[in-house]
Amino acid sequence: MQQLSVPKGTRDFLPSEMAKRNYIFNTIRQVYELYGFVPIETPAMENLSTLLGKYGDEGDKLLFRILNSGNYLSDIRPEELNPHNAYGLSGRICEKGLRYDLTVPFARFVVMHKNDLSFPFRRYQIQPVWRADRPQKGRYREFYQCDADIIGSDSLLNEFELLQIIDEVFSRLNLRVIIKINHRKILTGMAEMAGCAAMINDLTTAIDKLDKTSLQQVKEELTTKGFSADAIATLESFLAIKGTPAEVLQSLTHLFSSSETGQQGIRELSTLFTYLNTMPLQSRAELDITLARGLHYYTGTILEVKSAEVQIGSIGGGGRYDNLTGIFGLPGVSGVGISFGADRIYDVLTQLGKFPAFVEEKIKVMFVNFGPAEEKAILPLAMGLRQRNIPCLIYPDQAKIKKQMAYASGLQIPYVAIIGEEELKNHLVTLKKMDTGEQTQMSQEQFLQMNF
Amino acid sequence: MQQLSVPKGTRDFLPSEMAKRNYIFNTIRQVYELYGFVPIETPAMENLSTLLGKYGDEGDKLLFRILNSGNYLSDIRPEELNPHNAYGLSGRICEKGLRYDLTVPFARFVVMHKNDLSFPFRRYQIQPVWRADRPQKGRYREFYQCDADIIGSDSLLNEFELLQIIDEVFSRLNLRVIIKINHRKILTGMAEMAGCAAMINDLTTAIDKLDKTSLQQVKEELTTKGFSADAIATLESFLAIKGTPAEVLQSLTHLFSSSETGQQGIRELSTLFTYLNTMPLQSRAELDITLARGLHYYTGTILEVKSAEVQIGSIGGGGRYDNLTGIFGLPGVSGVGISFGADRIYDVLTQLGKFPAFVEEKIKVMFVNFGPAEEKAILPLAMGLRQRNIPCLIYPDQAKIKKQMAYASGLQIPYVAIIGEEELKNHLVTLKKMDTGEQTQMSQEQFLQMNF
Repeated sequence: MQQLSVPKGTRDFLPSEMAKRNYIFNTIRQVYELYGFVPIETPAMENLSTLLGKYGDEGDKLLFRILNSGNYLSDIRPEELNPHNAYGLSGRICEKGLRYDLTVPFARFVVMHKNDLSFPFRRYQIQPVWRADRPQKGRYREFYQCDADIIGSDSLLNEFELLQIIDEVFSRLNLRVIIKINHRKILTGMAEMAGCAAMINDLTTAIDKLDKTSLQQVKEELTTKGFSADAIATLESFLAIKGTPAEVLQSLTHLFSSSETGQQGIRELSTLFTYLNTMPLQSRAELDITLARGLHYYTGTILEVKSAEVQIGSIGGGGRYDNLTGIFGLPGVSGVGISFGADRIYDVLTQLGKFPAFVEEKIKVMFVNFGPAEEKAILPLAMGLRQRNIPCLIYPDQAKIKKQMAYASGLQIPYVAIIGEEELKNHLVTLKKMDTGEQTQMSQEQFLQMNF
Repeated sequence: MQQLSVPKGTRDFLPSEMAKRNYIFNTIRQVYELYGFVPIETPAMENLSTLLGKYGDEGDKLLFRILNSGNYLSDIRPEELNPHNAYGLSGRICEKGLRYDLTVPFARFVVMHKNDLSFPFRRYQIQPVWRADRPQKGRYREFYQCDADIIGSDSLLNEFELLQIIDEVFSRLNLRVIIKINHRKILTGMAEMAGCAAMINDLTTAIDKLDKTSLQQVKEELTTKGFSADAIATLESFLAIKGTPAEVLQSLTHLFSSSETGQQGIRELSTLFTYLNTMPLQSRAELDITLARGLHYYTGTILEVKSAEVQIGSIGGGGRYDNLTGIFGLPGVSGVGISFGADRIYDVLTQLGKFPAFVEEKIKVMFVNFGPAEEKAILPLAMGLRQRNIPCLIYPDQAKIKKQMAYASGLQIPYVAIIGEEELKNHLVTLKKMDTGEQTQMSQEQFLQMNF
């Protein structure tokens, strides 16, 4: 027999996994829709000209490229067909690639369809993305992203509503989380006050590691990157500020006296925390001025969601960016977005045993099959349940009863309906509750009224 | 500005298209689940060893191949790097391809996971597939398939339930359809009685064109393929049989006197039509012994769904196959499946104007934004609606009222809630019904009880 496999880093999803994954996706989708977001989809393939140069050199290497159809070598000069020209040649024999995230396709979408969209545009998108990363535990080459963005509005109400969405999603999933909040302009303020404004990207990259490594290691990284001892000391004093959000923002107002950018960050976070005081979340939302997030396109508020129950990386995050569509020639479109890490949320729910039982219990009743005469009686009963939107199935073959019952157990079907010779004669149904084994006989009319 | 596009044959879906597409997908999904089918998903990419040789030479050419990551040329000998070796080289520089349909990945899935599945296994799968076909009207390079199959059971109850599913899906979509039914063994019976059993594939390929071309042209194709005049005359007499299903099957019983295979086909269709007589469908289900369906892996019942209202190709179909997983070394797994053509169903619904209004009307209420004080009053009202699962949105910016109203109209939001200075002072809400322009003032408590 041929040895079968799926490509490394990709997965099949069995029905029980699908049920749990759909529970997560549906929860996210429902909350997005409750807040007035509408769905879009983009093709799995994009032109490489759309994708290249948007994710840095590393990202470009991680794109899956699709070989041109037909004779993809017909326009290639012999000297290009050279084992040392693999990268250059790939640009000539592949025009398309699989999407790497949902953000760049969304930016392209907005520019292409701007005349068909109403701004502020609130879209959500739940689709797979592909990355030729080295597969490892919890990291896949095909995985779903669940993004929501509002573009074309500067209002901080958007940030607040995205926090409400995060809060509502995790509350519906029965997970306790901590939402960390910061602002890129506060990081810029720190950099300006420490005299290292030009090195802001190195600074955020280093600070971003604070929750994984020690302060000492971050300081060493900053030294290696060329930050002066004075600058590092100033930065350290900022990062050490403690207190309530209001207190911390108050301290920063004084310390950022000469950073207009820093002051703007403080004003915006003050507004955001005023929303949070007026309409408190169920989750803990905290100001964390050490939060940096690696992605350099963020320019305003940044968010990150951590589980309060399980030690795992972030399970959601987001932020505001000033110029999403600028890369495609449409400048000045500001937006703010969030994303949920569905695979990690799956792992957290599994680890805590918090998937509700109903998630896997879709089929409510199985009808045992004793042969054609009984089947004839069963068909209208199955139809009756289905008309009431109760999922059920008829065992299709006249197999041994033991085999049929084992099948129902295997599928976690809670009820089995038995119509044998006696039931057939007297128009009865025997209903077996599978978890207790309890059996009840009833008329067919009663059966059709049952709540399962 | 960079000229933006999506790869040819692929599409973006705007929110209004998504709403309509999801209406179709959700209807299909709900009915599949009502009949006890459970979802699975497989990766977009499969190993080319899984895909190649399963769709004929033509199909192999239509596979999208994914260039190997890293230096894909490192193991290639210089003589292989030859413009005349494009096809051979593609097999060396690409190990993976995008799935071409859901059937072959499903067969692979069943073989790989057979120990984790309960048989008979009823699965549905709704995912995109990719084909490097020449794009044309109504044919895309990326499109969704919506398949359901039952494998590991020979019972004709499965065929009947699949007919019930087709019937229920189109009934919920408010579309009138004709379901044509035939049996591959009846076609084999015809071929055997006409003395051309060895040419059954040529026969089905030719007969399959009967609904698009004339009988004369089909006869010419058969002549070209080497069928004798006698054989063609016999076949023609079979195809001319008319009557109720029972009458046609009766006639064939006599005509197929010496074809055991033909007799088996007749017996199976008789059983299926007995089910249909006992539990009639809402749709017209008819025996059509000229129905052939092109796919050669069908071995039993075959089905095809046509719109009764619009001239368009088939909008669904299916059939029984004896040996789905044999290609992967697991013989003897019989199954039967159906598939819905979502893109064509979309076109039919559009043409007939049969998408219900609620499909695009997801957001029920928009709150006009007059500034921070009003916003503070709006936030608990929006939360109140959301707690009742009523989707709503707050216009995020303090824009001109005209602009805000136009935004609500553009998004087809049926109600706009206005809280201005006066409403704020008196704890009121003015609710405007957008289609009539009618305005009603009410207390905030009344507003929170409203049904939208």
